[in-house]
Amino acid sequence: MKNLSETKFALSYINKYGSLMAQGNGYLGLRASHEEDYPGQVRGMYLAGVYNRPAGSESAELVNLPDIAGMQIELDGQLFSLQMGKIVEYERHLALGSGLLTRRIIWRDPRGRLFELNFERVVGKTRGTLIGSRVSIKSLNQSVRAVITTGIDGQQTNFGTQQLMEEKLHVAAGDFMVGHYETIESDRKIVIAAKVAPGGVITAKNRQIKSQVTFDLQPGQAAILEKIVMVSSDLDLETTNLENVGADRRLSQQKDSDVLAILESTALAKLADRDFDWLKREVEKDWAKFWVTGRVELEPKASTVNTDQLALDFASYHLEIMTPKNDPRMSVGAKGLTGEGYKGHVFWDTEIFILPYFLHHSPETAKNMLLYRYHHLQDAKEKAQQYGYSGALFPWESAFSGREETPEFAAINIRTGKRQRIASALAEHHIVADIAYAVWGYFQATRDQIFMEKYGRELLRETAEFWLSRAVWQDGHYQILDVIGPDEYTEHIDNNAYTNYLAVFNVEQAIRFNQDATDFCQRGADFLANLYLPVAGSDGIIPQDDTFLTKPQIDLEKYKQTQGKQGILLDYSRAEVIDMQILKQADLVMLFYLLPHLFPADIVAQNLSFYEERTIHDSSLSKAIHAIVACRSGDVDTAYRFFQEACLIDLGTDPHSSDDGIHAASTGAIWLAAVFGFAGVDTTDVRLHFTPRLPETWQKMSFHFWWQNEKLQVELKQGMIKLSKGSTTELEIEINGKLLTLTDREIEERI
Amino acid sequence: MKNLSETKFALSYINKYGSLMAQGNGYLGLRASHEEDYPGQVRGMYLAGVYNRPAGSESAELVNLPDIAGMQIELDGQLFSLQMGKIVEYERHLALGSGLLTRRIIWRDPRGRLFELNFERVVGKTRGTLIGSRVSIKSLNQSVRAVITTGIDGQQTNFGTQQLMEEKLHVAAGDFMVGHYETIESDRKIVIAAKVAPGGVITAKNRQIKSQVTFDLQPGQAAILEKIVMVSSDLDLETTNLENVGADRRLSQQKDSDVLAILESTALAKLADRDFDWLKREVEKDWAKFWVTGRVELEPKASTVNTDQLALDFASYHLEIMTPKNDPRMSVGAKGLTGEGYKGHVFWDTEIFILPYFLHHSPETAKNMLLYRYHHLQDAKEKAQQYGYSGALFPWESAFSGREETPEFAAINIRTGKRQRIASALAEHHIVADIAYAVWGYFQATRDQIFMEKYGRELLRETAEFWLSRAVWQDGHYQILDVIGPDEYTEHIDNNAYTNYLAVFNVEQAIRFNQDATDFCQRGADFLANLYLPVAGSDGIIPQDDTFLTKPQIDLEKYKQTQGKQGILLDYSRAEVIDMQILKQADLVMLFYLLPHLFPADIVAQNLSFYEERTIHDSSLSKAIHAIVACRSGDVDTAYRFFQEACLIDLGTDPHSSDDGIHAASTGAIWLAAVFGFAGVDTTDVRLHFTPRLPETWQKMSFHFWWQNEKLQVELKQGMIKLSKGSTTELEIEINGKLLTLTDREIEERI
Repeated sequence: MKNLSETKFALSYINKYGSLMAQGNGYLGLRASHEEDYPGQVRGMYLAGVYNRPAGSESAELVNLPDIAGMQIELDGQLFSLQMGKIVEYERHLALGSGLLTRRIIWRDPRGRLFELNFERVVGKTRGTLIGSRVSIKSLNQSVRAVITTGIDGQQTNFGTQQLMEEKLHVAAGDFMVGHYETIESDRKIVIAAKVAPGGVITAKNRQIKSQVTFDLQPGQAAILEKIVMVSSDLDLETTNLENVGADRRLSQQKDSDVLAILESTALAKLADRDFDWLKREVEKDWAKFWVTGRVELEPKASTVNTDQLALDFASYHLEIMTPKNDPRMSVGAKGLTGEGYKGHVFWDTEIFILPYFLHHSPETAKNMLLYRYHHLQDAKEKAQQYGYSGALFPWESAFSGREETPEFAAINIRTGKRQRIASALAEHHIVADIAYAVWGYFQATRDQIFMEKYGRELLRETAEFWLSRAVWQDGHYQILDVIGPDEYTEHIDNNAYTNYLAVFNVEQAIRFNQDATDFCQRGADFLANLYLPVAGSDGIIPQDDTFLTKPQIDLEKYKQTQGKQGILLDYSRAEVIDMQILKQADLVMLFYLLPHLFPADIVAQNLSFYEERTIHDSSLSKAIHAIVACRSGDVDTAYRFFQEACLIDLGTDPHSSDDGIHAASTGAIWLAAVFGFAGVDTTDVRLHFTPRLPETWQKMSFHFWWQNEKLQVELKQGMIKLSKGSTTELEIEINGKLLTLTDREIEERI
Repeated sequence: MKNLSETKFALSYINKYGSLMAQGNGYLGLRASHEEDYPGQVRGMYLAGVYNRPAGSESAELVNLPDIAGMQIELDGQLFSLQMGKIVEYERHLALGSGLLTRRIIWRDPRGRLFELNFERVVGKTRGTLIGSRVSIKSLNQSVRAVITTGIDGQQTNFGTQQLMEEKLHVAAGDFMVGHYETIESDRKIVIAAKVAPGGVITAKNRQIKSQVTFDLQPGQAAILEKIVMVSSDLDLETTNLENVGADRRLSQQKDSDVLAILESTALAKLADRDFDWLKREVEKDWAKFWVTGRVELEPKASTVNTDQLALDFASYHLEIMTPKNDPRMSVGAKGLTGEGYKGHVFWDTEIFILPYFLHHSPETAKNMLLYRYHHLQDAKEKAQQYGYSGALFPWESAFSGREETPEFAAINIRTGKRQRIASALAEHHIVADIAYAVWGYFQATRDQIFMEKYGRELLRETAEFWLSRAVWQDGHYQILDVIGPDEYTEHIDNNAYTNYLAVFNVEQAIRFNQDATDFCQRGADFLANLYLPVAGSDGIIPQDDTFLTKPQIDLEKYKQTQGKQGILLDYSRAEVIDMQILKQADLVMLFYLLPHLFPADIVAQNLSFYEERTIHDSSLSKAIHAIVACRSGDVDTAYRFFQEACLIDLGTDPHSSDDGIHAASTGAIWLAAVFGFAGVDTTDVRLHFTPRLPETWQKMSFHFWWQNEKLQVELKQGMIKLSKGSTTELEIEINGKLLTLTDREIEERI
């Protein structure tokens, strides 16, 4: 498997690679910051679910934990930094296959002394696990004194916002540096224990505890330092069984100091006798296991330089490290655990873009995401009530508490000098239907009756109740007024096509699974019969909302060239953008993707083209979805172009595109584009459908796909599909509309 | 006047020079951090009195304000940093005479392009004033695009501890970037307004508001950017009259947002139409005025390289910028306003080491320091009560509130792994007598009857009452048990010589000024008659405390070689150090300095020698005082050696000696050593005495000296003293014991 590699050290890319090469396990994320400090380098380590609402802020933030990756390296008193001297050789690799981050440097210092430096770093792949690093510094041509200082650095903040109180720093069990922390507002307890070998002189000051190790090196001799760390929080101690969350509060009975003491002794016990090599082997094994089924594998046409495989592996890798597997108190933030963008909040991205990958690889993990929503159903009902609605109005952004976490203000309006309010929490209500869609999708893929009975039907009904209360009777219809669709460059509009159609789908599914709730079903049927739904006009165009087609159009060429950067907001205020035919992403295209059979193919194609002309693709969610819809419309070339551009959202050359974390939803969307686009998977019917349309440069594509308790292996070539699942049960599927029955025999079909 | 200069860029000295070259005006301090970022560079800007007690901490910290000095300079997309490329020329100067900080660099970037960069920075010398900076970047051999980004950076913390909430960032009056902040706990309001010229594109994110200005330069052309800033807090709005503090709370009636709005409009009004050159001229004028009287001027022997003048000018400069002049809510912290060492807390340093300079240059300022104590007399009485004493027990460390602010823990004990408790708040009670001594000193120098009547006598009586309650009757004496003297390497000892003698002095002066308090005077007389006072044994040695002379002595040579670094604590635990004859500074020497006529000269000399052998001088307060006592003992050579070593506390070559701020008390002590040591000033009698003993290398020494409403000009040469005061009133003084009467005629005396 190819590495994600950096072959040149460039300060301007330091935070992008810090995000791209991040390591983790779904519960802990560690940015790939360099051991040594650089101006502007943002260090970051995060635990899923560990948020804190800072003083004076209205929303919780994913807590940037004390740093354990930094190391000060002094060579005869001079600080090692690649900004100085001369870099003779430089390479850094994230081995996606094994999770290992390595860096190798040959460096000539300003005094002409030559060094070889090797760095390795690894993060355990299971929850509550260890972090290891090793540094080797070889002096190539001189005797030198190398002094390495590293420990636990509690000076980290979220861009100046302090989240943690330092309860205690001390040395335990002889040579373990230990830090006890508590989040200021949310009362989470965190313990970090770290040990270096060989051991050094330990000091503590200014929220740092550090060990300083001195090596006197002859030419050719290497200083080797290993560091092993454990990070844990009280969330690791509490039960993760949904039924018990909130009820079983063993820990809350205990004194803070006792909880911290338990965490410390657990950490020290786990660290005892462990070393870097042991951890590295464990992690390699765990990643190897993951990749057996976690991957979309391509065989590109000979003689083509193909980066698609790397993008797909990058996507799988990040989907895996961003997602907590079985703790319903946690879900996936917009940047995973790779950075502080969007404060680590959970958006609709999780259900619509990230959940499908797990639904078809690890349905239990997908279920966990839905349980996260169920866990906060009461909060959602309270939000609905607060605004005078019924049912459940899930927050646009959520964190640990389930409350609405959307910040009040966004950027500064360059014209007025004032900060602009974010309207999403007030109007971007489609998230309610998106969650319902995901509940339906989970059932569709798993037939998990127990889930539907215990959680799903209630989620469907409460979300549907919201829509029933949200619609108003006007001009002989129910109408859904004053919303924001997925396209956030259009605000406060009426009868948004995406929202209205998804609301219908939501209510339909709620009725389907709540037949015993007669009153609800009657009201639901009335809603379905009377909700106004935008339809195609004589020109074939479905209006995105009631007023969109009446707005002026402008030439977007300039802004499309810098897609993803929201450059239009430098020329126009948000209010002005809203009043023009300018889309961040296209609501209709999103709707076509989710409900592919709602409109005839020609209407889909026509609207795809009409809206694309008006879409800047400033949203990272836009292109991969366009790829899928274009592919389904038979335009594979356009689809492939969109796909490749989608792959560049994180992996492109823009040095700052991913500074504050990778685009979590985009990694899910890359996988969606491959599987739901080119492989032509359709999961909306009772049977699984394949309508494959491989890009011309892909000779072969294969992947694993969970479907209704079966683990399918899918292999596609130009003109051929091969399917197997290894179990004897019968499974009906359709290939290009042809019905086939799959058992434990491999099926090969010409297509 | 000589500049304080840095002629070589070295990363390891970056924070030392950041402190040494700090600028300010007694109300605001700005560290001399570079415009560009470097690993480990600590930025800092502080306002006197603006403290905050962070979450989970027991003590308030001087708040590190948002940074306004930083600038990102991009040259064709590459960040300017002296770590890269080649420094062809480099010089940085703090012009002590004019307060201007300049830096000039010729720099070859890694691509071989040559640039000349000039930086200037200036801080207004009066309260509530402006900060200006100017950068000029000339491309010497290429066309280049220079992009400068700068604004207000609220990501600053106190080593990871957040003190401020960002209330608002916005753009006001067209092109002013404005930040509104509130301290989290102490509820201080701060507004920072900044403007760059030419103006750029303003953005705000992650607690930063920045303006980005782009210059396209031809070879030889310079990009010139000016920035002007105002920083103010609600402390600037409230009255500073002591009688009204606490009573007149106009502001507390107002909403926070109104206070911030007032601060903003004041700031914008002050900034309007101001530019860098205007500010620079103002500051130059103000500093020129200061130096007319603020300086000890030396004329060194021809052909000697003499750094004493620079050290004395450095001392005067820092004394001036660390000290608030007339706001009794503020005093001087242990690092002034140059860094975060000791959290900005006020110690006995202020009264004993810093106050005398102002007493004899600007008595009103000295009075302000005492009013700060008076303002918190009630808090001190409460602290006494809390521990079961009467009178006033001033806190060992104090900040804005007047409460005890000493942190609970210090460094980690390398043996036990535990953090060590700081005992000073519980036992270092001599600060009570030190404050009383300063009250006496102020009266001695000013004869300010009104002060004594309104504040002084009460301070004297309440401090004396503390001693009366602190002493216990034991073995036929009053004894003062379980204290720490100035020598902090000896803890929890009984009858500390410094403490007991100072307590006597305290009670004596209290009786003198409280003759009407009959009961108090009777109890005071009983205390004076019966307090046990250590006296010289048959060997002439006065025991520092009851047990010191019984402790084992060790060879301190090794530790004396690294004086000031507390290296002994790397070899011995604090508990072990306490049980040996090891002094951080010598209590007896300190006592000899303050009360020079308590012991005969031979006893002083004998004890000076005895204790010096046992003193590491790890305290920055030690050497200058040794210089004075040695000088008075007639050993000018030893005195001069001590003086020169004292000058190196900040100005020496140790790269990290002043990282967290200059040693405020040490600057006061340098001045004391010159004036109370070599010039031989003695202020303990009703008349001012001079017993000059100039070091051999000083041909001439002259200074101004306020004494009892007269401004004396003193000029000393080897064997000669010249005095003048310009007023016609008669003033009796003694020169080497000879009585002289000074009027407006200049007096010249052979000595």
